[in-house]
Amino acid sequence: MELLKKRIIEDGSVIGTEIVKVDGFLNHRLDVKLLDEIGKEFASRFSGVKIDKILTVEASGIAVACMTAPHMGHPPVVFAKKATPSTMNEGFYEAEAHSFTKGTISKFKVDRKFLEEGENVLILDDFLASGQASVALVDIIGQAKANVAGIGAVIEKNHQGGRKKLEEMGHRVEALAVIDRIEDGKIIFLQK
Amino acid sequence: MELLKKRIIEDGSVIGTEIVKVDGFLNHRLDVKLLDEIGKEFASRFSGVKIDKILTVEASGIAVACMTAPHMGHPPVVFAKKATPSTMNEGFYEAEAHSFTKGTISKFKVDRKFLEEGENVLILDDFLASGQASVALVDIIGQAKANVAGIGAVIEKNHQGGRKKLEEMGHRVEALAVIDRIEDGKIIFLQK
Repeated sequence: MELLKKRIIEDGSVIGTEIVKVDGFLNHRLDVKLLDEIGKEFASRFSGVKIDKILTVEASGIAVACMTAPHMGHPPVVFAKKATPSTMNEGFYEAEAHSFTKGTISKFKVDRKFLEEGENVLILDDFLASGQASVALVDIIGQAKANVAGIGAVIEKNHQGGRKKLEEMGHRVEALAVIDRIEDGKIIFLQK
Repeated sequence: MELLKKRIIEDGSVIGTEIVKVDGFLNHRLDVKLLDEIGKEFASRFSGVKIDKILTVEASGIAVACMTAPHMGHPPVVFAKKATPSTMNEGFYEAEAHSFTKGTISKFKVDRKFLEEGENVLILDDFLASGQASVALVDIIGQAKANVAGIGAVIEKNHQGGRKKLEEMGHRVEALAVIDRIEDGKIIFLQK
């Protein structure tokens, strides 16, 4: 998605050789117009795939999922929670994921009521790197005996192995901008 | 907003006399179609008000803000963070808020880059109860020398005093469903 790559180059910044910071438009300040285009692009890539629900994780996945749903016929969005609110007390699916950026381990939780056996669930998130978050969401979908319709990420960091892991599990992965590597502080996209 | 009140009655549940649980459509599973109608309603209530930016707080405010922005000409959305990611290192505005539901104190943080002096900022959130979260966001907007364009909440719990506090500070408050009280496990809306 050229518009997105252009924006990453213009407004993104690089920390070391691993972290690409896109908080100016994707995960702190949100460019809602760009997110709408991102949603259209996901809808086009997954057209023909039956999608009953979108699953993401708080916080930065929520905007991506919400802005995509209207382009896919408004399937409901469910976001996994990282903390357990006092009002969430009726049993939930749970899986662990390590956050590369925050250096923490999160427990993703989804209330059992909100995933149904046999439904087709699309996973969406802002980043795909090591794939830990997506693998945790796949795990949760499996616990609910639902099906993974595919995995969509706005930005993929190709060299961290997440796609490989997910594809080996048999899942389709679509990323809108694939970063091959960071070289001398410059972002190099994978050309396909 | 009748559609919303109907949905709260049908799908909401009550815990004790204080907590209304709407995780089936507003803050865990998201009804994107309803959120789109919520966005339209906020746009109509704040029509004629100059809005340069929408400010909310992670996680459940993000969907509300994102689904409202397209109906207001796509102003950018900024969401306050409750944790400090390792990539957020250039100085931020900060204010404390007590979470009634979670029983915790959160520090809301907004990167200084994402609020500009003199701009008009609309605060949106899922709930308005004691007003702690909104007051913290008002504080942050003040630190940035920006202006509060108004405060919008999807659901207000009238008896917890948040609106009174915010109106006394001179701010306009719009809530789409105002709960007066919970009586014998039943939600009673304020009739206006």
